[in-house]
Amino acid sequence: MTHGATLVANPAGKPPVDLRSDTVTRPTPAMYERMASAPLGDDGLDGDPTAQTLESSTAALLGKEAALYVPSATMANLLAILAQAERQELVLSEATSHIYVSERGAAALTGAFYESIAGIDGAMDLDLLGEALAPGLGRLRAGVVCLETSHNNAGGTVLPLEHMRAAFEASKRVGASVHLDGARLMNAAVALGVAAADISAFADTVSLCLSKGLSAPMGAVLAGSAATIWRARSLRKMLGGSQRQVGIAAAAGLVAVSTMVERLADDHLAARRLAEGIGRIAGLVAKRPQTNIVQVDVGATGLDATQWESALRRLGVLVRPWGRKRLRCVTHRHVGAEEIDLALAGFTAVAERIA
Amino acid sequence: MTHGATLVANPAGKPPVDLRSDTVTRPTPAMYERMASAPLGDDGLDGDPTAQTLESSTAALLGKEAALYVPSATMANLLAILAQAERQELVLSEATSHIYVSERGAAALTGAFYESIAGIDGAMDLDLLGEALAPGLGRLRAGVVCLETSHNNAGGTVLPLEHMRAAFEASKRVGASVHLDGARLMNAAVALGVAAADISAFADTVSLCLSKGLSAPMGAVLAGSAATIWRARSLRKMLGGSQRQVGIAAAAGLVAVSTMVERLADDHLAARRLAEGIGRIAGLVAKRPQTNIVQVDVGATGLDATQWESALRRLGVLVRPWGRKRLRCVTHRHVGAEEIDLALAGFTAVAERIA
Amino acid sequence: MTHGATLVANPAGKPPVDLRSDTVTRPTPAMYERMASAPLGDDGLDGDPTAQTLESSTAALLGKEAALYVPSATMANLLAILAQAERQELVLSEATSHIYVSERGAAALTGAFYESIAGIDGAMDLDLLGEALAPGLGRLRAGVVCLETSHNNAGGTVLPLEHMRAAFEASKRVGASVHLDGARLMNAAVALGVAAADISAFADTVSLCLSKGLSAPMGAVLAGSAATIWRARSLRKMLGGSQRQVGIAAAAGLVAVSTMVERLADDHLAARRLAEGIGRIAGLVAKRPQTNIVQVDVGATGLDATQWESALRRLGVLVRPWGRKRLRCVTHRHVGAEEIDLALAGFTAVAERIA
Amino acid sequence: MTHGATLVANPAGKPPVDLRSDTVTRPTPAMYERMASAPLGDDGLDGDPTAQTLESSTAALLGKEAALYVPSATMANLLAILAQAERQELVLSEATSHIYVSERGAAALTGAFYESIAGIDGAMDLDLLGEALAPGLGRLRAGVVCLETSHNNAGGTVLPLEHMRAAFEASKRVGASVHLDGARLMNAAVALGVAAADISAFADTVSLCLSKGLSAPMGAVLAGSAATIWRARSLRKMLGGSQRQVGIAAAAGLVAVSTMVERLADDHLAARRLAEGIGRIAGLVAKRPQTNIVQVDVGATGLDATQWESALRRLGVLVRPWGRKRLRCVTHRHVGAEEIDLALAGFTAVAERIA
Repeated sequence: MTHGATLVANPAGKPPVDLRSDTVTRPTPAMYERMASAPLGDDGLDGDPTAQTLESSTAALLGKEAALYVPSATMANLLAILAQAERQELVLSEATSHIYVSERGAAALTGAFYESIAGIDGAMDLDLLGEALAPGLGRLRAGVVCLETSHNNAGGTVLPLEHMRAAFEASKRVGASVHLDGARLMNAAVALGVAAADISAFADTVSLCLSKGLSAPMGAVLAGSAATIWRARSLRKMLGGSQRQVGIAAAAGLVAVSTMVERLADDHLAARRLAEGIGRIAGLVAKRPQTNIVQVDVGATGLDATQWESALRRLGVLVRPWGRKRLRCVTHRHVGAEEIDLALAGFTAVAERIA
Repeated sequence: MTHGATLVANPAGKPPVDLRSDTVTRPTPAMYERMASAPLGDDGLDGDPTAQTLESSTAALLGKEAALYVPSATMANLLAILAQAERQELVLSEATSHIYVSERGAAALTGAFYESIAGIDGAMDLDLLGEALAPGLGRLRAGVVCLETSHNNAGGTVLPLEHMRAAFEASKRVGASVHLDGARLMNAAVALGVAAADISAFADTVSLCLSKGLSAPMGAVLAGSAATIWRARSLRKMLGGSQRQVGIAAAAGLVAVSTMVERLADDHLAARRLAEGIGRIAGLVAKRPQTNIVQVDVGATGLDATQWESALRRLGVLVRPWGRKRLRCVTHRHVGAEEIDLALAGFTAVAERIA
Repeated sequence: MTHGATLVANPAGKPPVDLRSDTVTRPTPAMYERMASAPLGDDGLDGDPTAQTLESSTAALLGKEAALYVPSATMANLLAILAQAERQELVLSEATSHIYVSERGAAALTGAFYESIAGIDGAMDLDLLGEALAPGLGRLRAGVVCLETSHNNAGGTVLPLEHMRAAFEASKRVGASVHLDGARLMNAAVALGVAAADISAFADTVSLCLSKGLSAPMGAVLAGSAATIWRARSLRKMLGGSQRQVGIAAAAGLVAVSTMVERLADDHLAARRLAEGIGRIAGLVAKRPQTNIVQVDVGATGLDATQWESALRRLGVLVRPWGRKRLRCVTHRHVGAEEIDLALAGFTAVAERIA
Repeated sequence: MTHGATLVANPAGKPPVDLRSDTVTRPTPAMYERMASAPLGDDGLDGDPTAQTLESSTAALLGKEAALYVPSATMANLLAILAQAERQELVLSEATSHIYVSERGAAALTGAFYESIAGIDGAMDLDLLGEALAPGLGRLRAGVVCLETSHNNAGGTVLPLEHMRAAFEASKRVGASVHLDGARLMNAAVALGVAAADISAFADTVSLCLSKGLSAPMGAVLAGSAATIWRARSLRKMLGGSQRQVGIAAAAGLVAVSTMVERLADDHLAARRLAEGIGRIAGLVAKRPQTNIVQVDVGATGLDATQWESALRRLGVLVRPWGRKRLRCVTHRHVGAEEIDLALAGFTAVAERIA
C-alpha cells in the first residue's frame, strides 16, 4: 500500500488494517498478466478488442443486450441518466442513495430534476414513489427511477427482489426508465445467492463497478438495451470518457468479472465476524451485515465518530466516520482473519481506554 | 494491430500503413514495464502516488502550479471550460477548432455559449476576437478563450507565439481566461524548437494528450493554477473521471512525457517526406506540413475523398477523408521510412489508375 | 366573472362564491383609471416612467435599494435564483414551499440543485438547514436559501420573524443569499402588524405578487440590492420578461401597493369566520387561519377532496382539492359576509347529505 | 412621449422625431377602450376569455391550430426552442438573426447548441444550412431551424417565399422543426402582398410581436400545432410568463391584429421616402428599404455612427447606431410626412456641417 496512512503501524507491527473502502483493493497478479498481453486497438476508431470482449461478457452476465466500458461507476450512472432522462424530467432515487447524495453535482449538467424518496434500509417507500411518479398537470414527468443494491449508505443492505420488481413495474406503468446503481451489485448477487442477471432484470440499465471488491484498478460497465448503450457511447465521448487503447485497463476488468465474484462471500463472512466481535464490545452497536459493509454506532461511547476514527488510526486500524455517531468499515480482499483480529483488538483497546 | 482493417494487406504483403491518426500508437515496452511496477494508491482516498508524480512533473513541464490526470483530452478541455466559465458566459474558439467542431456536445452541459471566430491556419482573426470580447449591454461576458496548437483541422499548423500572446493579452484585458487545447502541444513545441512551457505561458490552463504521438494507451493532463486545478478535481469527480488505482495508467503517461517528446521530430520529418512525395503526383496537392499532419487535396483528380480512401485502403494504406475533397494523413511512431514508401506507392497507384 | 364555472349558480341564485384563489380578483375602478392615464415609455429604450415609479416605490416599501417589475411572481422567484446561484450550487427551500413544489421545472434551466428541507407550518427545521448549509469536500455550495411567507401549502401560515432571522443569519455565515418568496408578503405583514420591510429585512431579495389579494390584473416585483436587480434586469430580458409600454400594467400595480394592502385584514377576518363556521360542521376540521387561507380536512367525512369539490361546485361554492383529504379556501376582495354565509351553507348542505 | 430624450426639441420646435424603433409606438385610443371593457378571467384557472379570443384569432390569422399569448416576442422565440429542441440538439439560425445575436443568453437555459449559418440579406446560405443539417456520427442532431422575416439586422429585408420553402423542406427531411421569428412578420406580409399565413406555412411555429409597428403596449403571440402550443403553455408557466387577468393586455393586442396591419404600408412608404431623401445627401448611402427599416451607411462622411447619432439627437432626430458605420432608422405610426421632412432636414444639416 502506498497511502501516507501506512506510516502508522499497529501494535502488532503490521501494516494498518484498511477498512475505509473496498476501493483500496490492488490489482491481482492475474490482472497484471492480462494487462501485459491484452490485444489492443483504438477505441475511437476500429474499437479495442479487449474492451469489446469485456463489454460483451458483462452484457451477458447482466442479461442485457449491450454494455459499455467507462472510467468509473459515477460516469456509468451519469450516462444512464443522460441517456434516459430529458431536460425537466424527474430522476427519482432513495434519499440516502449514492446518486442522490454524492453524485448530485451532475444534476446541474443533465437538466433533469433530482428528487429524493424517503426509504428504509435503502429501499424507497413504494407509496411515496407512486406519488412521485403520478402524472399531472404542471408536474414534471418521471424520466429515470434509480435503485441501488447493495446500498452503501444503508450499510450494504440488499434490496429484496420483490421490492425491485414492484419499483420496476410502477416505473414502467408511467413510461419511466429504471437504472440500477450496481456499484456493488455482485455483493448483492452473492448475498442473495442469485445470478446478477436475476437482479438486473428489474432495471433497464445497470452499472457495475470493477474496482471495488472485484479489485480491478479502475473502470466500470454500463449495460442496457442496444439502443440505450448506443446513445450512452456517444454521450461518453462528450463527457471525455472515451479512451484509445483502453483494453489495457479493460483487461483487468475481464479478470475481475470472471474470477473475483465468488470470493466476495469471504468478504461477507469477514464482515459478519467483524460485526459480531464489535457487538461484544460494551457501548458499540453493529447490525449483522448483509454484505461487506459494517456500520458501527458509537453514540453510546462518549466519543464521536471523528474521535473514534483518529483513535483507531493511531492503533493501525483505518475506518471512516459516517455521520457524527457512526463508523463505516468495509471488508475486502486485503482483510483476512488476521486483519479482523487486529481490527477487533483496536476497537477493544479504544473502548477500554474510554471506560 | 488489432483493427479489422489489418485484414487488408498491401501489395508488399506488409500490414497496412495506418495514417488515420496518431491515436493508433501502441504502448512501448518501457510503458508496460512501468505499469507493472508502479506504486499504486486509491486516488479517491489518499491519492495515487504515480498519478501524483505524473501531475507534478507535467505541471513543471508546462510551467503551471498544478496538474490533473484525466481519462482523455476531451475531458481536460471540458474541465477547463467548466472550471473557468459560468452559465451564460462565452466560450470563444476558432471556427474549425476541435473544441468548437467536435466537442460542442458538451456545451449543453456547461450552460456556456460557444461562439466560433473565423480564422486562418487555425489562428483566430484577432479583430473578430476583439469584437467578440468587447463588453456591452445585453452582451454575454467572455468566460474562456480557447486556442489550439498544433491545430488539427487546419492541418497540424502551429500558432505563432506572437498570435498567442496577442490573443492572451486581449482576453486578460476583459477578464477572460485562456485555455490552450494542447492535444498535440508537444508537436508544436518540437516544431517551434521551444519548451512546452514557452507556449503554455500564453494560457491559464492547458491540456496535453498522452495518447497521440506520445504513445501512451490512454489519458491526458490538465494544467493550470492551483486554484483552478482544485476546482477541476472536484468537477472531474462529478463527471465520473476520477478513478481509483489510476497510477497503473498514469505510469504509461510518465514514460510518454519523459521519453517520447523528442522523437516527434521523426514524425514531422516523415510527414514532410510524405507531403513532398504526394506533391509530385499529378492532381494531388499537399502543403508542406508544419508537424505530423498532411492534408491532401484530391479535388483535381476526379475522385472524391471517400473514393480515395477506399481505393487506398484496398492497397493497404489507411487514411481519413477530411471533407469532400481532402484526405488527412497523420504520421507517428509506427510510420517509418518503409511505411512512407508504401504509402507513396499506394497514392501513385491510385493516381495512375485514374489517369 | 368570466370563467365557465360561473354558469353554476348557487341555490340563492347568486354567482358562485369563488374561494379557489385570491388570484381571481379583478382590477378595481381606480386601477382602470390609472391605467388609462399613466405616462408611458419604452422600457427597452429610455424606460417606462410608470414602471419606474412602481419600482422605486416598492423598493422603498420593501426596504431595498432597487426593484424590478416582472410579469409574475414565478418569474420574480426564478430571477432571484438565476441572479444569486451559479451552476451546481444549492437552492434550499422548505419541502412544501411553492418554489420547491410548483416552480421546480425552472431548476432545469438554472443548473442549480434544488434540495428540500423538511419543516413545520412552512418553517424549515433549522437543524436540517444547518446541515444542508455546511460546507465540505464533495458537497455542493449553498447558493440561495428560499423562505416563503405567508406560506401557501402550509395554509397561509406566517413565518415568525425570529425564525427568519435565524435562517438568514445561518445563510449569511456560509455566504449564501436569502430569497423571500413574498407572493403573499403583504398578508404576512398585516397578520404580524409590522411593515413589509421589517420582514424583508431578513432576505437579500424579495418577490411581491401584485395580482393576488392586492387585485392587480397581473405582475409582480422583485426587490433587492442595486447590483442584484441590475443583474436580474438583464436576466429578465433573456427570459422574455421585458416589455415595452409596460407602465400600462404597472399602473394597476401602483394602485395595488398604495391602496389595497390594509384591506387584506378584511380577508383575514373573513377567513377566520369561514374556518369557525366550518369547524362547527360535524366531520370537518379547519385550523384557525393566520391569514386568508383556510385548509379544510375532510378526511373524517367519508368523501375525499375531489368529491367535496364537485359537490360544493354544484352548490355554487368553488374550492380546490389540496391533496386527497384537504380543501383549500382562499378569501379575497370578492368574498364578503354574504359570500361567507353562502359558502358555509354549501359546506353544511354537503355534510348533511353525507350524514 | 415620456423618454428623457424628449427634452431635446428640434429646430422646428417640435418634439423629437423618434426613429430608434417601432417599439416606441404608443397604444391607440381604440386599444384603451378595449382594455377598459374586456371580459377578464384568471388565465391560471379557467382561462382569460380575452386572451383566448386573441389566441384563436391569431392562430387563424397565422394558419396554425393554436396560439399562446406571451409577454414578449423574445419569450415566444424561447418557448418555440424549448418546446422543439432537446438538450444537445442544434438550433440553427442566420448569423445576424435576432435570435442568434440578441437572444443567445437563453441558449444557456435550453441546453441546445446555437449555431449560426452565414447568409445574405438575412437569408441563410442553403448549402451551408444543408451541411449543418446533415446527420452523422458524433454530430449533434438538428432540433430547430429559425428563420426571421422581415429581418431586423439585415435592414428589414423580407425572405423570399421560395427561400423559406427550401429551408423548410430541407429541415423537415431530417426531422428538424422550423420556427419563424415573426417579430415583424406583418411587415413582411404587407411588403409581399400576401397573407401572413402564406408565410408562416413554411414554419412549424411562428412568433408575432404585437408591440412593434402594430402598436400594442406589450405582448406577443406564439402559434403552432396544438401539441406544441400545449407544451409551450406549460413551459410558459415555468418561465414565469403566465399571468392572471391577462386579457387586459391581450385586449390591446386584439385591436392591434385586427386594425393595425394594413397601415404598415404607410410606414413602408415613409421609409422609402426617408431612404430616397438620405440617398440625395452627399456621403450617405441608404439602400431602398423593403419594409420600415432604413440602414444608413455613414462610412464615407468622416463621422462614425455614434457621432452621427449624437449630432442628430441635438437636432431632435433620434436614430440608433448599428455597428460603427451604420445607423438604423425605423418608421412607425408616429412618423408621418412632417417627421420625415424634419428627419431629412436633420441629416442634411449634419452633412453640411461636416462638408
